[in-house]
Amino acid sequence: MTELPPTAFTKRIEIRWRDMDAFKHVNNAVYLTYLEEARDEWFLQVLGNGLLLNDFVLARCAVDYRTPVTQEDGHVDVQLTCTRVGRSSVTTSERITVAGDGRLAAEAEAVLVHYDWSTGKSRPLTDELATAFGRWLL
Amino acid sequence: MTELPPTAFTKRIEIRWRDMDAFKHVNNAVYLTYLEEARDEWFLQVLGNGLLLNDFVLARCAVDYRTPVTQEDGHVDVQLTCTRVGRSSVTTSERITVAGDGRLAAEAEAVLVHYDWSTGKSRPLTDELATAFGRWLL
Amino acid sequence: MTELPPTAFTKRIEIRWRDMDAFKHVNNAVYLTYLEEARDEWFLQVLGNGLLLNDFVLARCAVDYRTPVTQEDGHVDVQLTCTRVGRSSVTTSERITVAGDGRLAAEAEAVLVHYDWSTGKSRPLTDELATAFGRWLL
Amino acid sequence: MTELPPTAFTKRIEIRWRDMDAFKHVNNAVYLTYLEEARDEWFLQVLGNGLLLNDFVLARCAVDYRTPVTQEDGHVDVQLTCTRVGRSSVTTSERITVAGDGRLAAEAEAVLVHYDWSTGKSRPLTDELATAFGRWLL
Repeated sequence: MTELPPTAFTKRIEIRWRDMDAFKHVNNAVYLTYLEEARDEWFLQVLGNGLLLNDFVLARCAVDYRTPVTQEDGHVDVQLTCTRVGRSSVTTSERITVAGDGRLAAEAEAVLVHYDWSTGKSRPLTDELATAFGRWLL
Repeated sequence: MTELPPTAFTKRIEIRWRDMDAFKHVNNAVYLTYLEEARDEWFLQVLGNGLLLNDFVLARCAVDYRTPVTQEDGHVDVQLTCTRVGRSSVTTSERITVAGDGRLAAEAEAVLVHYDWSTGKSRPLTDELATAFGRWLL
Repeated sequence: MTELPPTAFTKRIEIRWRDMDAFKHVNNAVYLTYLEEARDEWFLQVLGNGLLLNDFVLARCAVDYRTPVTQEDGHVDVQLTCTRVGRSSVTTSERITVAGDGRLAAEAEAVLVHYDWSTGKSRPLTDELATAFGRWLL
Repeated sequence: MTELPPTAFTKRIEIRWRDMDAFKHVNNAVYLTYLEEARDEWFLQVLGNGLLLNDFVLARCAVDYRTPVTQEDGHVDVQLTCTRVGRSSVTTSERITVAGDGRLAAEAEAVLVHYDWSTGKSRPLTDELATAFGRWLL
């Protein structure tokens, strides 16, 4: 029996008034919060255990801002795909779109490193983790 | 030898662009962050040990907003006084003013409860704590 | 035909990881953001026009914190009732509960003042506004 | 008379309790707020007029996180240099270090685009702007 590959993970997020800044747009830093919400929920789904989240740290995040978003847009959708499973890291690629009209708000990339808090260093993904993430690879 | 009573505690805080919302004013919730910054630093000074901060929880906070503040105001000063030392709580009273022109931005009051995390209940202030806070009473 | 009075207004809000602070609880200031989200949406419903929101400023907000909330609680419900319609202000009363188990997280009160930005002073509610808010009085 | 080139621009920022998340580290999104504070102040210094800030939008921001920062670190320094002046954009490069021990917390890059709000498109830097930014090129 063939196991179907998971599709991209999508998280819908309601925009808050506080997300905007004095330009009446969602502030650039808030996009990282949107990405974090999607990534954390995806991790829960991949790993089946929220506690494992603690084993990863964000090593890099890059955002290309495409069009401004305001609270009147209501919700954004963060669509996340896994683009690389490395020896001790996972790379994700995200698209943030406005829920109502599908407008592309931003594209992003993040690198998560499997981390050993006791040594303060990265550590290899276990086979189990590599397999779990690998099932989400495009 | 007479020990002089401490004066009110003042903490100067730089206003960030992110503190403002789409009305181009510091957002109402951010005032609680300003109060928190002042309160935490005051606790460190009163108690001489940051870890004790963990023993208190915020039970109440009330803010009367007087005039709007913008990032162009630069800094605010949070002036904190201790107005009551109860059996298991401490009440503080704050004034937030604009550093440059002394304009009153807000007045606030907070109640901090001495808390026992293991039981999830309040617990009496020790004599040592009551004395330490009492020295700051108006 | 009798017009039925509106019931209390409720807004469900998803808790974000960023809402928590280093105590692993939703930070005290974030409660004001939750209240703001509920209040703004209620205003839209009462006034039928978001632009009118600009005509009100928050004059006071008081929060009594009851039990801590974490992201694992998922969502909170902010239940808002109108408790007073004054000459130039409206007072609301809120209860924030955890959506899953109904646990009371906080109780709050807010005073919104009808504001004239050109003079920087409050101004009386119009009859139309007083009627619109009055329909929501408990 | 030779005009000396400006050195890198540095902005010192006090870390707030609210900047941390439930991992007891400054949250990844807050780094963008730190960068924003430095960038805005640098713009004021380069352009001599805060209003011109409105003429630029953030098109890209990338952060490489190096070591965690906590509130106990007190302050961070954001050191900004200008690495490229394009036809209608400016690229900056930043290092965020802990003020006390000089520890590297993050490295970042940002692209700011000269923007025409009426057309919603980028527009060329004026000669005056290109010269003003050019003086800061490494």
